[in-house]
Amino acid sequence: MPAGFHEMWRDLLPVGRSRATGGYRRYAWSEADAECRAWFRDQALARGLHCETDRNGNQWAWWGDATAPGAVATGSHLDSVPDGGAFDGPLGVVGALAAVDELRARGHTPRRPLAVVNFADEEGARFGVACTGSRLATGQLAPERARALRDAGGVTLAQAMERAGHDPDGLGPDPERLERLSAFVELHIEQGRALADTPHPVGVASAIWPHGRWRFDFHGEANHAGTTRLEDRRDPMLTYATTVLAARKKARLAGALATFGKVAVEPNGVNAVPSLVRGWLDSRAPDEETLDAVVARIGTAAAERGARDGVRVEITRESFTPLVEFAHRLRDEIAGLLGAPGQPAPQLPTGAGHDAGVLSAALPAAMLYVRNPTGVSHSPAESATEDDCAAGVTALADVLEELTCR
Amino acid sequence: MPAGFHEMWRDLLPVGRSRATGGYRRYAWSEADAECRAWFRDQALARGLHCETDRNGNQWAWWGDATAPGAVATGSHLDSVPDGGAFDGPLGVVGALAAVDELRARGHTPRRPLAVVNFADEEGARFGVACTGSRLATGQLAPERARALRDAGGVTLAQAMERAGHDPDGLGPDPERLERLSAFVELHIEQGRALADTPHPVGVASAIWPHGRWRFDFHGEANHAGTTRLEDRRDPMLTYATTVLAARKKARLAGALATFGKVAVEPNGVNAVPSLVRGWLDSRAPDEETLDAVVARIGTAAAERGARDGVRVEITRESFTPLVEFAHRLRDEIAGLLGAPGQPAPQLPTGAGHDAGVLSAALPAAMLYVRNPTGVSHSPAESATEDDCAAGVTALADVLEELTCR
Repeated sequence: MPAGFHEMWRDLLPVGRSRATGGYRRYAWSEADAECRAWFRDQALARGLHCETDRNGNQWAWWGDATAPGAVATGSHLDSVPDGGAFDGPLGVVGALAAVDELRARGHTPRRPLAVVNFADEEGARFGVACTGSRLATGQLAPERARALRDAGGVTLAQAMERAGHDPDGLGPDPERLERLSAFVELHIEQGRALADTPHPVGVASAIWPHGRWRFDFHGEANHAGTTRLEDRRDPMLTYATTVLAARKKARLAGALATFGKVAVEPNGVNAVPSLVRGWLDSRAPDEETLDAVVARIGTAAAERGARDGVRVEITRESFTPLVEFAHRLRDEIAGLLGAPGQPAPQLPTGAGHDAGVLSAALPAAMLYVRNPTGVSHSPAESATEDDCAAGVTALADVLEELTCR
Repeated sequence: MPAGFHEMWRDLLPVGRSRATGGYRRYAWSEADAECRAWFRDQALARGLHCETDRNGNQWAWWGDATAPGAVATGSHLDSVPDGGAFDGPLGVVGALAAVDELRARGHTPRRPLAVVNFADEEGARFGVACTGSRLATGQLAPERARALRDAGGVTLAQAMERAGHDPDGLGPDPERLERLSAFVELHIEQGRALADTPHPVGVASAIWPHGRWRFDFHGEANHAGTTRLEDRRDPMLTYATTVLAARKKARLAGALATFGKVAVEPNGVNAVPSLVRGWLDSRAPDEETLDAVVARIGTAAAERGARDGVRVEITRESFTPLVEFAHRLRDEIAGLLGAPGQPAPQLPTGAGHDAGVLSAALPAAMLYVRNPTGVSHSPAESATEDDCAAGVTALADVLEELTCR
């Protein structure tokens, strides 16, 4: 592991960290985010890289001519979910800068420009839309919609950008910039345990599962918890509970994922049978047919129990992202490059969205995953060993060396 | 039904009613409460009754000498739960005043003083403790604790009383007042359907079930809903869901009540496996042994499922109220008085606390229930037919006539 990695990691570690939870609260365009951005700029300048911020708020650090065609880009993001871990995002930015150090230490001279990117607002924790910076650049998010997004305090994204010194008028598709890129590679901590029990510290992303969120509204009848006979109740909490358990079972049987992580109850009183329980289902599957089938089966289980409980169930799809398959040629080449002869590095799908997935609509994109011993992510407990991080940086340097020597 | 009932009901109906929900928000010592209190005073004075407010904020309207011994009291409360119905409380106050009108129309002259009471803060919706007025008077709530209770906005009960013009220094046990009472009878809407399918418009309370609330903390592990394999999760929502369904089943088998009506989730994010689900159990049963057994069985079911889910379950009893049996002699006498010869009016237990239950620790107390066709209570949908309300007033007048003629 080059010494630079340690220094960068140590510098970044305290930024936006909550003392109470040990988790990170680096929300887009906040003070913590500004600190992360200043840190990125300092690191770029210290390496003699040309640093610029594009119209959509993404930061670019250039080794070579920023205006030449065929450039290779790498990077990730520095923002976090509420009480997130230290690795999701930062590993890909710190790792990219460390890979530049590594390539220089090897004496490598790139034949193409190499850019390290810090994408804006990947998590969407503050304004509710993930991958805002890359979606705006690729035209997958309309600038007028982005500007009008509001945080929990009512501040719009446009206002937050302005307060942070970024002009929101410039938001929108950036095809000229994307056309100058020949490939994008993102290093990321694995957010599961597919690599954990293998000898491989690094894997290659095959695809991002189709995923979506559905709001389930369970309409019952408010009543006195101390006096209403069980048989006279229309208690939506029972229907909700059955649906939670059905979601787990249907997902397990189909090899999919299903989670109820957010709930809202009315009136939410200890001595009141609820009038309404609202639960949000997050579901993901290897393909869209499976995902549709799982969600339909969960809906059927909810409706059947609802009929018994006298509870009306209403299901609203709030968002949906189709399957992303990473460019086969690039991913297979990378898997071959990183594996032993005849034994390519493992390829694995993920259920999580990433900037690399968004960019793959516009150019060949790939992801490298660093092994995560517990699989825990979006939590202060997220971790990777130092050796595995070093292996990730070396793998990224290998890939960048190959892609920039052509 | 005497005309006075209709007028009183119509006058009181708009006070503290939410236009949005149609429910009542008559919280103790609020403006709506002050309007209710002014209304009560006006009604007392219009009937030539002497009106006073005791040290604990309860209002008394006297027919006869307020200082003489052996008085009979009747009444209920005018405050409400959030978005409560029109009947819970007001039926007992309006009904008591209408019963006075009825007795006068009959030409009855009481041999004992008769008091109509409006108890302060029965629901405890604002400060979290129910039956504050009667508990203070009987010494079941310490005045220093009462004064320090805070509402959601941080206002103490003492401050709220002062702002409403009542001196909180006077709070505390009032044995002299209670010793002057020979009986208390409360008319109340039934909060279940025990009478609904019978020919009886009015029933008599036998007992108030022991009841309590328990907080269940389900400790899991926060994780990414899109990437964490099902088998790697410690998802407390699954344990919670199983516990909700177990609570229903264990209560049904034991003839008890169990409700999870309030939930809090952390971090409560759509794409996050929760780290913590907190659910509050409200449970009630005919006797304490049954209640203890039901809660223990629910706890066992939670712990068993928790062991499978990798979720730690912590159970905290937040409150408990033992069984209240209403004075047998008084309740049996009333049931005989209200029934046909050889066919006493039905006696029924309830799971809900009332001022009559609190007072029964100090003097013979009884309750009359008016039939509720849907059983719905603590909701704008709470209702009783006009005929049944009239039957309730007549029954109350019959009981008061009997009790005051001795």
